[in-house]
Amino acid sequence: MERFQKQKIIQIAKKAKEASLNIASLSTDVKNNILKALAENLLKNKDFILNENYKDVELAKKMKLSNAFVDRLTLNETRLNNMSKSILSLINLPDPVGKIINSWQAPSGFFISKIRVPIGVILIIYEARPDVTSDCIGLCIKSGNAVILKGGSESLNSNLAIYKVFLNILKKFSFPCDAINVIPTRDRRVLNLLLRLNDYIDLVIPRGGENLIKKVTSISRIPVIKHYKGICHIYVDKDADIEMARKVCFNAKVQRPSTCNAMESMLVHRDIAEKYLPLILKDLVEAGVEIRGCSYTLKIAKNLGLNKAKFRKATIKDYQTEYLDLILAVKVVNDLEEAIDHINRYGSHHSDAIITFKENTAEEFLKRIDSACVYHNASTRLTDGYQFGMGAEIGISTDRIHARGPMALEELTTYKYIIKGKGHIRT
Amino acid sequence: MERFQKQKIIQIAKKAKEASLNIASLSTDVKNNILKALAENLLKNKDFILNENYKDVELAKKMKLSNAFVDRLTLNETRLNNMSKSILSLINLPDPVGKIINSWQAPSGFFISKIRVPIGVILIIYEARPDVTSDCIGLCIKSGNAVILKGGSESLNSNLAIYKVFLNILKKFSFPCDAINVIPTRDRRVLNLLLRLNDYIDLVIPRGGENLIKKVTSISRIPVIKHYKGICHIYVDKDADIEMARKVCFNAKVQRPSTCNAMESMLVHRDIAEKYLPLILKDLVEAGVEIRGCSYTLKIAKNLGLNKAKFRKATIKDYQTEYLDLILAVKVVNDLEEAIDHINRYGSHHSDAIITFKENTAEEFLKRIDSACVYHNASTRLTDGYQFGMGAEIGISTDRIHARGPMALEELTTYKYIIKGKGHIRT
Repeated sequence: MERFQKQKIIQIAKKAKEASLNIASLSTDVKNNILKALAENLLKNKDFILNENYKDVELAKKMKLSNAFVDRLTLNETRLNNMSKSILSLINLPDPVGKIINSWQAPSGFFISKIRVPIGVILIIYEARPDVTSDCIGLCIKSGNAVILKGGSESLNSNLAIYKVFLNILKKFSFPCDAINVIPTRDRRVLNLLLRLNDYIDLVIPRGGENLIKKVTSISRIPVIKHYKGICHIYVDKDADIEMARKVCFNAKVQRPSTCNAMESMLVHRDIAEKYLPLILKDLVEAGVEIRGCSYTLKIAKNLGLNKAKFRKATIKDYQTEYLDLILAVKVVNDLEEAIDHINRYGSHHSDAIITFKENTAEEFLKRIDSACVYHNASTRLTDGYQFGMGAEIGISTDRIHARGPMALEELTTYKYIIKGKGHIRT
Repeated sequence: MERFQKQKIIQIAKKAKEASLNIASLSTDVKNNILKALAENLLKNKDFILNENYKDVELAKKMKLSNAFVDRLTLNETRLNNMSKSILSLINLPDPVGKIINSWQAPSGFFISKIRVPIGVILIIYEARPDVTSDCIGLCIKSGNAVILKGGSESLNSNLAIYKVFLNILKKFSFPCDAINVIPTRDRRVLNLLLRLNDYIDLVIPRGGENLIKKVTSISRIPVIKHYKGICHIYVDKDADIEMARKVCFNAKVQRPSTCNAMESMLVHRDIAEKYLPLILKDLVEAGVEIRGCSYTLKIAKNLGLNKAKFRKATIKDYQTEYLDLILAVKVVNDLEEAIDHINRYGSHHSDAIITFKENTAEEFLKRIDSACVYHNASTRLTDGYQFGMGAEIGISTDRIHARGPMALEELTTYKYIIKGKGHIRT
């Protein structure tokens, strides 16, 4: 990277760190007024933003990027409306900053309060999705964090347009503008540089595919919280309400298969397989789902005379794959033990469910499944900030440190201890 | 590293990961019984442990390592007693595992509980201090974590001796012994390997000097929580009770200067300097403290006729140095603003204090100082798990992610969401 460019990036990070102390102490009212103005101006400037987005979309089409890719990149009036609403929704959420987590008197008499404070400077790395740009800026403003955004290069015009619109408003609020940043280059080497700036950046959140995540964790000297894949399971126990299992599994696979909390593998207890599998397999195949089945599953499908083209023998690789599509691995297991072992071994520790009416069986499953979200008689699709009542989220953390599962406003903070004494010393 | 050795290390980590699921579900009673037996057997096997330790100490002396180094390495009956007591003290601390952090009903009616669970496998990297070995094993057992210990090579015999004694006991409890590990080699390249095993290890805690910490953060693909230096400040405000300031500052510098929470810089408001500095400078010099002072400080010292040899002009470098010794930087500042700016700029965000009787001034300081622990009218030396009433700690985190300040049993856990529905789906 050119020396000039490099210095510019370092300056962005350095100034963001300085500004982070100022954004940290903004009052809730000021932050909410800013959010309101941002949401409104996103719509007022829709022509400008859509024009800039059009440039990105045209280029992406020229580069023959996939339809799904171009779809995620494209903005339109509906999407801008949603982005605006998403920012407005933050106004009504409680401000996590300054919240007292706990307070107590120490053994020797001084008082301790553990208080939420912003993390500092957050670097978010994501794909070419301009809606994520405005979501992240909104979440970081409300949580009092400075933010550096590195979206997919293909969305640079769109991201810069949104940033420009926001910046004009922020200036009017005597806001510490250095706290909000969009990296203004397509140069991919910029990541190598940013991920070494641990003196200025406090946290990296990569959202994306396996290669991106691997690259980030192998280079970064900054703490990373990964928002990685979801290989989610539902285990239908021998003591399951069959109609409930049918409804929940269908929902978890079919309602929106492209999401990280969609079911990718269904495990079925041997004792219920003969009754349950014919029903759910028919449902799924009718909805266009392709099945990667164990031999038992394939036998049942054959007996039912289901469309052979929709079935294939499952391999170990299938159990390790996040399809994000209308494809499902199905395996009949001998008992709860085998189900737990399978999920802990092949899953991604994201969201996993059991369907059973036996409390003991459920307790065992909930205790031993090593995942961020474990469900009893509910769909894995519920892993979501809004569904949980936590509000907007920056993503679903698949990490174990700091934040696990939906990462909303509270998870975008850390804490500090405030200690009040009367001349207390260590003796 | 030899292929065989490499495979052995990978196996240790892999088996620790498997065992982590078992140690996670041990009951509090079982864990407490184990801790009691470990503490007892540390003393029963004192001859064996002290003999092995003697080998390390002799080697360290032959290698002409510093007296301070040899002192930290040396075990004796008193230290073994303290190690044993330290493990016993864990028994009375509440078990964090299974604790409900929060529970609520989601908007669509299902129930969510946020529950503490162990982190998994923790790699702890530390210097040649065998007492840390038994402390860490105790803390990890109580918090349900598997642990891999990499202590300083010079303490290998001692660490292996403690490990052997413990292992004999653990086997009797049908404990998942693969959960507790001491890396059995002096080969320093082992760190390069361990820090890339992010499939098996969930967290790295390096405790040590700048070079170790830099090495670990630059190599590690595993999340790191740093236990790094403390450049702690006390700011004596113009509205300070002079006798309180004198007592607290003296304590923070002199009581145990080798610790990370000792004061390294004292800032004094210009309006109180003439009254306060003569008193505290005399106290400190009498206690053997060397002063790195600003010109104002040096002038006062000269006027007092204090021993010239104890005073030197402070440089920027002094403000950035963790002395861990009877040395103190002293600076007179114009106002609160300058004090806050100095601390946020040169400090290590560990522990910083203000002495003042003005509530407003204190509030401003407590809010704007960006450190793990901020004190009003108390000594920075109070940053400590026991002092805080949190019990034994694995160290003081200087990181912002997951754990900040004293890292005790709770901070050695993460959480998971347990969701109970009645067939709830996403609509």
